[in-house]
Amino acid sequence: MVGGGRGSQIGYIHRSAAMRDRSFDLVAGAFDIDPARGAAFGAGLGLDPERCYRDHEALFAGEAARTDGVEAVSIATPNNTHYAIARAALEHGLHVVCEKPLCFTVAEAEELQRLAHGRGRVLGVAYGYSGYGTIEQARAMVAAGELGEVRLVNLQFAHGFHSAPVEEDNPAIRWRVDPRFAGPSYVLGDLATHPLYISEVICPDLKIGRLMCARQSFVASRAPLEDNAVTLMEYEGGAFGTVWTSAVNAGAIHSQKVRIVGSRASLEWWDERPNQLSFEVQGEPVRVLERGMPYLHPEALAEDHISVGHAEGLFESWTNIYGRFAAAMRATGRGDAATLAGLRYPDAAAGVAGVRWVENCVRSADAGGVWVDYR
Amino acid sequence: MVGGGRGSQIGYIHRSAAMRDRSFDLVAGAFDIDPARGAAFGAGLGLDPERCYRDHEALFAGEAARTDGVEAVSIATPNNTHYAIARAALEHGLHVVCEKPLCFTVAEAEELQRLAHGRGRVLGVAYGYSGYGTIEQARAMVAAGELGEVRLVNLQFAHGFHSAPVEEDNPAIRWRVDPRFAGPSYVLGDLATHPLYISEVICPDLKIGRLMCARQSFVASRAPLEDNAVTLMEYEGGAFGTVWTSAVNAGAIHSQKVRIVGSRASLEWWDERPNQLSFEVQGEPVRVLERGMPYLHPEALAEDHISVGHAEGLFESWTNIYGRFAAAMRATGRGDAATLAGLRYPDAAAGVAGVRWVENCVRSADAGGVWVDYR
Amino acid sequence: MVGGGRGSQIGYIHRSAAMRDRSFDLVAGAFDIDPARGAAFGAGLGLDPERCYRDHEALFAGEAARTDGVEAVSIATPNNTHYAIARAALEHGLHVVCEKPLCFTVAEAEELQRLAHGRGRVLGVAYGYSGYGTIEQARAMVAAGELGEVRLVNLQFAHGFHSAPVEEDNPAIRWRVDPRFAGPSYVLGDLATHPLYISEVICPDLKIGRLMCARQSFVASRAPLEDNAVTLMEYEGGAFGTVWTSAVNAGAIHSQKVRIVGSRASLEWWDERPNQLSFEVQGEPVRVLERGMPYLHPEALAEDHISVGHAEGLFESWTNIYGRFAAAMRATGRGDAATLAGLRYPDAAAGVAGVRWVENCVRSADAGGVWVDYR
Amino acid sequence: MVGGGRGSQIGYIHRSAAMRDRSFDLVAGAFDIDPARGAAFGAGLGLDPERCYRDHEALFAGEAARTDGVEAVSIATPNNTHYAIARAALEHGLHVVCEKPLCFTVAEAEELQRLAHGRGRVLGVAYGYSGYGTIEQARAMVAAGELGEVRLVNLQFAHGFHSAPVEEDNPAIRWRVDPRFAGPSYVLGDLATHPLYISEVICPDLKIGRLMCARQSFVASRAPLEDNAVTLMEYEGGAFGTVWTSAVNAGAIHSQKVRIVGSRASLEWWDERPNQLSFEVQGEPVRVLERGMPYLHPEALAEDHISVGHAEGLFESWTNIYGRFAAAMRATGRGDAATLAGLRYPDAAAGVAGVRWVENCVRSADAGGVWVDYR
Ligand SMILES: NC(=O)c1ccc[n+]([C@@H]2O[C@H](COP(=O)([O-])OP(=O)(O)OC[C@H]3O[C@@H](n4cnc5c(N)ncnc54)[C@H](O)[C@@H]3O)[C@@H](O)[C@H]2O)c1
Ligand SMILES: NC(=O)c1ccc[n+]([C@@H]2O[C@H](COP(=O)([O-])OP(=O)(O)OC[C@H]3O[C@@H](n4cnc5c(N)ncnc54)[C@H](O)[C@@H]3O)[C@@H](O)[C@H]2O)c1
Ligand SMILES: NC(=O)c1ccc[n+]([C@@H]2O[C@H](COP(=O)([O-])OP(=O)(O)OC[C@H]3O[C@@H](n4cnc5c(N)ncnc54)[C@H](O)[C@@H]3O)[C@@H](O)[C@H]2O)c1
Ligand SMILES: NC(=O)c1ccc[n+]([C@@H]2O[C@H](COP(=O)([O-])OP(=O)(O)OC[C@H]3O[C@@H](n4cnc5c(N)ncnc54)[C@H](O)[C@@H]3O)[C@@H](O)[C@H]2O)c1
Repeated sequence: MVGGGRGSQIGYIHRSAAMRDRSFDLVAGAFDIDPARGAAFGAGLGLDPERCYRDHEALFAGEAARTDGVEAVSIATPNNTHYAIARAALEHGLHVVCEKPLCFTVAEAEELQRLAHGRGRVLGVAYGYSGYGTIEQARAMVAAGELGEVRLVNLQFAHGFHSAPVEEDNPAIRWRVDPRFAGPSYVLGDLATHPLYISEVICPDLKIGRLMCARQSFVASRAPLEDNAVTLMEYEGGAFGTVWTSAVNAGAIHSQKVRIVGSRASLEWWDERPNQLSFEVQGEPVRVLERGMPYLHPEALAEDHISVGHAEGLFESWTNIYGRFAAAMRATGRGDAATLAGLRYPDAAAGVAGVRWVENCVRSADAGGVWVDYR
Repeated sequence: MVGGGRGSQIGYIHRSAAMRDRSFDLVAGAFDIDPARGAAFGAGLGLDPERCYRDHEALFAGEAARTDGVEAVSIATPNNTHYAIARAALEHGLHVVCEKPLCFTVAEAEELQRLAHGRGRVLGVAYGYSGYGTIEQARAMVAAGELGEVRLVNLQFAHGFHSAPVEEDNPAIRWRVDPRFAGPSYVLGDLATHPLYISEVICPDLKIGRLMCARQSFVASRAPLEDNAVTLMEYEGGAFGTVWTSAVNAGAIHSQKVRIVGSRASLEWWDERPNQLSFEVQGEPVRVLERGMPYLHPEALAEDHISVGHAEGLFESWTNIYGRFAAAMRATGRGDAATLAGLRYPDAAAGVAGVRWVENCVRSADAGGVWVDYR
Repeated sequence: MVGGGRGSQIGYIHRSAAMRDRSFDLVAGAFDIDPARGAAFGAGLGLDPERCYRDHEALFAGEAARTDGVEAVSIATPNNTHYAIARAALEHGLHVVCEKPLCFTVAEAEELQRLAHGRGRVLGVAYGYSGYGTIEQARAMVAAGELGEVRLVNLQFAHGFHSAPVEEDNPAIRWRVDPRFAGPSYVLGDLATHPLYISEVICPDLKIGRLMCARQSFVASRAPLEDNAVTLMEYEGGAFGTVWTSAVNAGAIHSQKVRIVGSRASLEWWDERPNQLSFEVQGEPVRVLERGMPYLHPEALAEDHISVGHAEGLFESWTNIYGRFAAAMRATGRGDAATLAGLRYPDAAAGVAGVRWVENCVRSADAGGVWVDYR
Repeated sequence: MVGGGRGSQIGYIHRSAAMRDRSFDLVAGAFDIDPARGAAFGAGLGLDPERCYRDHEALFAGEAARTDGVEAVSIATPNNTHYAIARAALEHGLHVVCEKPLCFTVAEAEELQRLAHGRGRVLGVAYGYSGYGTIEQARAMVAAGELGEVRLVNLQFAHGFHSAPVEEDNPAIRWRVDPRFAGPSYVLGDLATHPLYISEVICPDLKIGRLMCARQSFVASRAPLEDNAVTLMEYEGGAFGTVWTSAVNAGAIHSQKVRIVGSRASLEWWDERPNQLSFEVQGEPVRVLERGMPYLHPEALAEDHISVGHAEGLFESWTNIYGRFAAAMRATGRGDAATLAGLRYPDAAAGVAGVRWVENCVRSADAGGVWVDYR
């Protein structure tokens, strides 16, 4: 593991999800920008001190020199480092699980994708919300035509925790609003790519034709990075999409919602109530689908960790994703194309897609919120 | 009353709200496009058959000829007739309550406004959702600075009842998607103007600087009228707004929601749960405000019909609006400017504002969804 | 009308519901315990001063002396006066709508019932929540066997407004906790009889075999009257019921809920969201039924005041009940037994049933919370 | 581990929670009533085949013979076996985590408690819902007097999954309704003890003075075991409690709810939305507290696994409980009384309390639903 050290927001769930169900074992790391702190942290996790490295280069080199060296690495560092670390890892022949956004430009992202492909390695991206059974259910329902033709995709990830300039006192937030570390966007990349990826999972046939994006920096010091943005998307074939993302939606917790509207019915998913899915057939009563119920599609039940009624949470979703990463790595290792074809996980293409979407949004926004052809 | 005859959607609530609390008395009408049916309907309401007229012209002439003729008229006919009927009524010296949209063009709307002004008559518009105490509470909270500076205005009125081409079998829907009767828009004028007016009540200081609108006709035969639209608004001073309106949001009932996001807190109101208001201060627990509770601002309690806990509904909201129309007419009659200054109701200016907004949206949409300066 | 004067909690909704849809006209009253205040109040309502009487006796005598005297009276006074006023009204040959609880003892209630029967007059009781279309829907669903065999009836009306001894400063609350005015119970009679009556409407076949009741006075000065109580009921045939009623459920608004559990499915209704009904078939997704939707039983749609999506409230429910009172009075007047058989409204039998239930609860509670045979 | 083998409902969460955060390591087991299946299951978990034993006796003996033998055991077998297995484990000097109900009689439970005490071993009980941060918050709020004096405790765990006689086709349910395996009760012990324990955590000062219980077997073949029960409790000092538990609440998922009503405010917790807590101060807006927010008491934040907004679920709650079991075992091992005093976990006393409560309920119910002194 690279990054995810003491006090990091996301390190624990990576480790916990990866090790759950024995998908992975954690044996080495470069956990912190501060090597000493990283070493102490690794020791606290029970790692061999020799395998707590000063940085990712030392890690990859050191592990490559071992017969029992790591086969895969998780990258949970600030955005600006993803590209270099992921490239180095792939070049060392490692499978990679990288945080989102994968990198800053489509060019970089495609390079990583090519590299992974060329080396025969898995490059997974940590779209951790996508592992819920309710997302699988939504996907299966759309595929089965239960919504009719998809017309509208309404996406939202709009919290309020950065309504005030909280970055002034908090370094873990400060890098997020600094383009040198965060890249070309703040909330578009940090938040919106999550529901965007979920929409790609649920509606794999939708292709964006053109989009327009308006972004704002309500805390002025964040400019040019936005703390609020709205994106409109015209899909090929006539469907229409909207994305609202915000860090200044005062008082809101996550408000990550995905609503898919079809000609016959709609589906709505909300990450704060992830065990439920609202299914709304026009002319019929709204139905609340519950994770774990036998009436769901088999794919939605396949990764359940416990019977219905017992609340699953984000850790189970991440565990499912990490489980699929592991399965993909094993299948890749043995060249098992059939298994790979049946596996759905946020892969290099998903990473590229997220970076591409942000790039298009920024291009539109910087041109004054005009429609741009998606490229 | 003109229109609102047998089987009409909105006639009953006009009559019921107007006559509740003895604000108005119903004594004459031209209730139906079919005079015989209209006369029968009026008789059923207990009206003097002589005062059930064949059409609005006969009504205005006939009543003008009486010493006890009507002083005010409600117009609840399809959109295309509003302008002519309202103008005729004003020219006969009547106060007018007209359904929305007031008419088809800003030019017409301003003419009606001038006419009302010139004749010293009230011209009210039936934005009937705006009478809820919870709306008054929201207004008072914004005015008192309880949200901080307003940053975002998110508006929505998106039902799903016309997901299929139901107009084929239903004349009461057919006119709504026919530009000859509906005017230049369908859902923008029919639905979106409701939450738009509410946002104007809550945030009176916000002025739209420019907007862009994308509209779609998912049921193709409705083109050029839209059954779904998204509008983005840049307010002067930096606030940003979005409006989603739809008649193809399959499975949704009304989904009329108004969310105001400030630098310190947000408010959210939903017309399907009109007795509650969500107040979300960043960093504090979400609070659910309840109509009728003593902690509300006095304006929010002033028009309560019953103590807290007993569900009020749309009829109370309309009753409040009609009560204010009556008060405005009385005050106008006696030239009581002080009372008029203290009354807030959807007036001619609100009617103009709604028509203007639709006109700008259509102008943007028809130009390909580009930003247009608001005019 | 008797009672319901200035500042009274429930007078306005009586008048408003009775006069809506021209079911009744208000022409006379004895509105207040203070005759002068009552007269002023009546004048404010636009009544003929001569028909604003000093008390109910003067009212009944005065109206009897007129050729256009009232035919029916609504009684909205404190509980202790219901029996005498209702009896006097019936003896004067008037139809009566009386507030609940109808009186203090089953003996009195049965006497009123006999009197009404003997005189051929309607005696209605103001169980005003029972007029919602969603209640009709629930009744029709149970009748159609959609729940299977009814097993459990869970009733609740538990607010928190009297958590503190608020009666000390408020005369309108003080009488409610004083046995001389309130009768043998506080919350059992004041609150619990509402959902109890609703359960009788929904499940007309259930007969209580025995019950037990525990009651408490958390504000000690209220003893012997309870401010919280739990009642358990064994129905004949094996179903089981519970009733929780409270005025000290701190922070709760109304919490009036009715849950009917059958062998196949459950229904849940909540008076704070009266346009919805939760229908929960075992093994299927929970469904949220909406007032006004065509999938409802015809009885549930028959009294709709406006199309689906527009929130109806308690005023519509009361209007429906008053409309049925009027229909019953007209049918009684013309001896139309067929119409009467088809009308469902809270009648004298419902009034007796409520008083009986309270009497049994108090008997059980006063014996230490023991099971008592229902009588 | 004993029990929790292939297809068992609860085995996975025991293992997953125990091993998360490296609280425990799983090295040996007797996972199944069928030894071969148990061995295969253990092998699948990666265990040394030698340490996959044929039954718990072989396990305890085999491990005792090793220098690296287990120090603690989790028991996840049907109820009838808990007593014997737990006793044997304690006699072998092992710490024990046992499923609820701990055993069948208070006498047995107290014997286990004494044994654990005498041997200086931890005896924990798997009240796994009690580890949520929201429960800690509730406890801290009551302790700080934020509710005022506690008046009412309303507990509920009422699902509908056994509305039909599903046990006929499902052995994992069959034992639950067979007194030989389940003990003296079904839902009282299986479900109600969960919210009961939570209420003991939140309101440690409440002592039951007397209670009464009515139980029913709506699926008649389950008699004498109940599939529905209501218990009323008088606490010493005047507070009052109710418990509804059911397996025939058709259509309900879990409906495990805990409502604590105080003289000033109420709290409500619902296991299907475990990240929220409703805080309802009389006279103020209802507040929705969210896990992870800085306004919570420190105890409620101490065991957070991830920042606010990210949904935690039952696995995090169990992980917290297992983490406390581990801490208690370590502290017991080193005789660290100070640490033990600061640890709150479902211990032997909690196990005894649950069995005692069931015993009192059954005694009351079998006597016809009479009040019994708590003993
Ligand atoms: N998938 C999700 O839901 C999700 C949620 C939060 C964050 N993230 C992403 O995770 C990444 C990390 O975010 P975070 O919130 O945990 O950040 P953070 O600032 O809380 O933690 C970053 C960690 O990385 C370490 N680090 C920094 N540079 C390093 C380097 N060069 N080598 C080794 N370690 C280094 C830091 O010492 C720290 O431990 C970001 O890309 C962010 O976008 C994803
Ligand atoms: N404020 C709201 O919430 C709301 C809700 C629904 C409709 N509306 C508006 O109300 C108006 C009427 O809508 P509706 O749904 O009741 O329509 P509808 O088609 O159901 O009824 C229209 C009524 O007007 C009568 N009519 C038509 N032309 C007439 C004429 N020239 N003279 C007299 N009567 C005439 C018809 O016979 C019919 O009785 C529209 O402008 C609509 O936009 C407003
Ligand atoms: N159905 C419901 O939902 C509901 C709700 C609230 C109250 N109630 C019932 O309505 C009745 C009145 O309750 P309230 O809350 O309105 O009481 P209140 O104290 O607010 O008002 C009582 C009114 O009756 C008048 N009055 C008292 N004695 C009178 C007399 N002898 N003659 C004429 N007028 C008299 C008073 O002056 C006052 O105007 C009670 O029986 C109560 O249980 C029913
Ligand atoms: N804490 C909770 O939330 C919760 C939830 C469910 C069950 N439980 C409790 O957990 C226990 C197990 O319930 P379950 O639903 O998992 O049961 P189950 O029938 O699904 O599984 C029982 C497991 O124990 C094994 N087993 C049975 N007898 C054994 C023996 N003598 N030695 C070794 N293994 C044996 C079985 O082979 C099976 O693998 C019960 O006491 C139940 O009350 C608790």
